[in-house]
Amino acid sequence: MGTKPLDLVVVLGGDGTLLSAARVTAAIDVPLLGVNLGSLGFLTEVPPQSLYPMLEAIAEGRATVERRALMLCELLRGDEVRGRYFVFNDAVVNKTALARLNTYDLYIDKVFVSSYRADGMIIATPTGSTAYSLSAGGPVLMPAVSALVVTPVAPHSLTHRPLVVPDSAEIEILLRSEEEVAYLSLDGQPGLDLSDGDRVRCRRSEHKVNLFRTGSDFFQILRSKLKWGERQA
Amino acid sequence: MGTKPLDLVVVLGGDGTLLSAARVTAAIDVPLLGVNLGSLGFLTEVPPQSLYPMLEAIAEGRATVERRALMLCELLRGDEVRGRYFVFNDAVVNKTALARLNTYDLYIDKVFVSSYRADGMIIATPTGSTAYSLSAGGPVLMPAVSALVVTPVAPHSLTHRPLVVPDSAEIEILLRSEEEVAYLSLDGQPGLDLSDGDRVRCRRSEHKVNLFRTGSDFFQILRSKLKWGERQA
Amino acid sequence: MGTKPLDLVVVLGGDGTLLSAARVTAAIDVPLLGVNLGSLGFLTEVPPQSLYPMLEAIAEGRATVERRALMLCELLRGDEVRGRYFVFNDAVVNKTALARLNTYDLYIDKVFVSSYRADGMIIATPTGSTAYSLSAGGPVLMPAVSALVVTPVAPHSLTHRPLVVPDSAEIEILLRSEEEVAYLSLDGQPGLDLSDGDRVRCRRSEHKVNLFRTGSDFFQILRSKLKWGERQA
Amino acid sequence: MGTKPLDLVVVLGGDGTLLSAARVTAAIDVPLLGVNLGSLGFLTEVPPQSLYPMLEAIAEGRATVERRALMLCELLRGDEVRGRYFVFNDAVVNKTALARLNTYDLYIDKVFVSSYRADGMIIATPTGSTAYSLSAGGPVLMPAVSALVVTPVAPHSLTHRPLVVPDSAEIEILLRSEEEVAYLSLDGQPGLDLSDGDRVRCRRSEHKVNLFRTGSDFFQILRSKLKWGERQA
Repeated sequence: MGTKPLDLVVVLGGDGTLLSAARVTAAIDVPLLGVNLGSLGFLTEVPPQSLYPMLEAIAEGRATVERRALMLCELLRGDEVRGRYFVFNDAVVNKTALARLNTYDLYIDKVFVSSYRADGMIIATPTGSTAYSLSAGGPVLMPAVSALVVTPVAPHSLTHRPLVVPDSAEIEILLRSEEEVAYLSLDGQPGLDLSDGDRVRCRRSEHKVNLFRTGSDFFQILRSKLKWGERQA
Repeated sequence: MGTKPLDLVVVLGGDGTLLSAARVTAAIDVPLLGVNLGSLGFLTEVPPQSLYPMLEAIAEGRATVERRALMLCELLRGDEVRGRYFVFNDAVVNKTALARLNTYDLYIDKVFVSSYRADGMIIATPTGSTAYSLSAGGPVLMPAVSALVVTPVAPHSLTHRPLVVPDSAEIEILLRSEEEVAYLSLDGQPGLDLSDGDRVRCRRSEHKVNLFRTGSDFFQILRSKLKWGERQA
Repeated sequence: MGTKPLDLVVVLGGDGTLLSAARVTAAIDVPLLGVNLGSLGFLTEVPPQSLYPMLEAIAEGRATVERRALMLCELLRGDEVRGRYFVFNDAVVNKTALARLNTYDLYIDKVFVSSYRADGMIIATPTGSTAYSLSAGGPVLMPAVSALVVTPVAPHSLTHRPLVVPDSAEIEILLRSEEEVAYLSLDGQPGLDLSDGDRVRCRRSEHKVNLFRTGSDFFQILRSKLKWGERQA
Repeated sequence: MGTKPLDLVVVLGGDGTLLSAARVTAAIDVPLLGVNLGSLGFLTEVPPQSLYPMLEAIAEGRATVERRALMLCELLRGDEVRGRYFVFNDAVVNKTALARLNTYDLYIDKVFVSSYRADGMIIATPTGSTAYSLSAGGPVLMPAVSALVVTPVAPHSLTHRPLVVPDSAEIEILLRSEEEVAYLSLDGQPGLDLSDGDRVRCRRSEHKVNLFRTGSDFFQILRSKLKWGERQA
């Protein structure tokens, strides 16, 4: 970054574009301004016509920055770390077309929680709690909650429920599968192949994603995006 | 089958084995006796030690036969029928590792119901309602209900719910996907590749699966297999 | 009704008004035309400005009538039938303010299904499946499905799921409660007090509710009322 | 408590007994030892035969104490505080027999979240997340999570989901109801009557519940009590 570090990254696109930008800039402490070119996003709430007023507000020090949690996830095979990734929304282990179900063992801080027979397992940040985890039946975590959520996808056992875990903990999913296969997908990116015995381990990153925010609060977005409170039936 | 048709097929194994036998024998009207070599199954409730008493009961005409609904499913590409299958539990269209979500259009008797953005879609018989559909949040259908159930897997829209459809109706799922891919899995068998525009169409078969039953009723199996009524919390 | 029976009842109001009219007219075979004075209803889909065109269509024999299932429910105390009611949407047994949980035993055709520790139990027709049962996690039943659905409200056991039952069956809920109390509510009307040992028994009525329908199909109403297919997240 | 404070309270009973003891002793900083006279509890995990070994371990300083979060809840009518309560599991606002649905407005730190049309609303601690909130579809919060969860019971809107809130926040539920009535129940105690405009406000208490623990971890209790990982279907 040389002698003159970045003051700001403007991200033009949707939530997916901002997820990518957040991962790329995670190690440097630069704030992001998400400008939504399509419909309102959870992360990109500024419409194009508000870009210049927003930049002025930033330049004049009137804009607020929200610090969002980021995960650091590792893929482990045996004793080897095969990859290390920043993850802003979720790490998902899912079955492939060949598998009906896989078995996933969940550990929190090295302590065994349970074996899950399921399509897949999601580890989500509060930011990711309104994405895939929500579709799989998970709760909404307010961005300020110091927690991660582990949500199974279509679990075989009817008693399994989403588990909210302190974000100081290390979450590990061990794939147990003799012939079946699975893949790991990070923030919805195309998957990495996994095989029997592979482990995915996530914990809170020391870095944060710094988002410039407009005045709209998280609940306005819930009401607008998720239609909270609209009477459906 | 020659001049002497089959009186009975004894199936030794678990529910999966019986599913296979049911599909193979669907077109001939032979009753099945499922003997469970492992733990109690939904379909194979007779333990090995009861096999001979059960055969005696059958020979003496004291055994009851339960007639279970079977689906006939077709895979259509353009105007062409690419395959036609008997299905006893469920027909599942699911995403592959490369896809995060697919779009599935549901039609009942050629009338458009809704577009689903989801991992997958399940069409299940009452027998299949206690299998994968249940894991995805579907209801339990008593075997005698003249209905099928369509259950989305991890739907993006929070308002989508399982839909119970008269089994006189034709259910069609149209895969809409530009670059993403999906596969069709029947009764949990390894999947068939699907691409954009492919349709899966299911309706009740004229054939039934005829199961010899012991005295235990469906609810005993719910209590025993699904632990209904056990106080968990 | 004398020598000149009714040809038609016009119901002005919302779904609640039509529920009342349906119960009152259940024993005579008169068709109902529901005119919605407020927002679109599941049952009252005709807007006021369409009333006269609709009446013309009816007079000219161009209107279609949909026959919807109705339940006959009885409240039993000991050997005594304390009340007999037509029910169009749902019969609900629920706890009172004093009770945290009650125990409800469910029987189908006199066969024991399970004990439920829950806030309440709902027995719903297909028409009622989009009302309270849906809020409690039940599936949507198409109006033509010959079934009823039993949905527990906030069940203590995590394995209990909604149960779809053939509408030829008799469904009975037995309240077991030493000191706690419950009440029975029919189609959302104010409740009748229940005590330990009371039973609520429902079965399909021989009568039907006959509704004049416009061209809009059930799925249009699902999309419009329940927002099926709208992308929330 | 005079000059010689309590070192320890031994609670003989079940989880309900311990909830009462926790509320009574909340303001003094005394640790509790829950001895389960019935089946294993979430809070009373020590069986009677382990009481003396446990007391020895405590006397010798070998026992560990777990500090669990407690809420302080207020019932407000107009400007008046009508009651102030320690709550260990959950504060529940629920409808009475006369009401079908109530409207509850949720505020977090005075910011409006959403209006809920529902049977009731639950505000639960992590300890309470495995009680009523779980039955209503809420997630499990590990005891160490610094959060509370707000779970609606049978919400009319299909998009409402449980909301996990930082425990530094103030959660307020405003009852809006013209003629209908509701009641407030704390830790499952018989309810207090509420009327239109009443507010229930909860926040983390400065006090903690101090529980002597045996070696068994939270996940063992999940597996044992909630049957996590047992294959039901």
